[in-house]
Amino acid sequence: QQQQANIITCIVGGSSKCLCKKTRDNLGINPRQIQNMEIFPPSNFCDKMEIIINLKRGGQYCLNPDAQKIRDILKKMANKP
Amino acid sequence: QQQQANIITCIVGGSSKCLCKKTRDNLGINPRQIQNMEIFPPSNFCDKMEIIINLKRGGQYCLNPDAQKIRDILKKMANKP
Repeated sequence: QQQQANIITCIVGGSSKCLCKKTRDNLGINPRQIQNMEIFPPSNFCDKMEIIINLKRGGQYCLNPDAQKIRDILKKMANKP
Repeated sequence: QQQQANIITCIVGGSSKCLCKKTRDNLGINPRQIQNMEIFPPSNFCDKMEIIINLKRGGQYCLNPDAQKIRDILKKMANKP
């Protein structure tokens, strides 16, 4: 669970329980640079869904699950042939 | 990247480059048991999208991104209020 710990200390910092302090409303990069996307459902730990993008070259950032562009990305993945 | 390495050795085993050897066509558990969902886009490493469910109590399994029930889950996440 080392990777999880890194995410928490890196993104959260202070005492808030959610992993993401800041989120982006769009992907903002070439999808080819994405290692994976981690989706955390709402939990006792954090009351909202959180989406974390891990990059192939290292580093990560959060997406805003309420932003229309992000919803469109999730829909696109659901409709892939 | 230790967690990534675990996934690869645990699920793949042999020489095939995709992470998932077996996939499920439905979630099959209470969503509350889910720690997170990792979505790997198609890459040079593996030519199809892969979805890995990590459980809170440890353990993980793969979902079939082409199965209708899994597509519905992704759509549901995209349409969350």
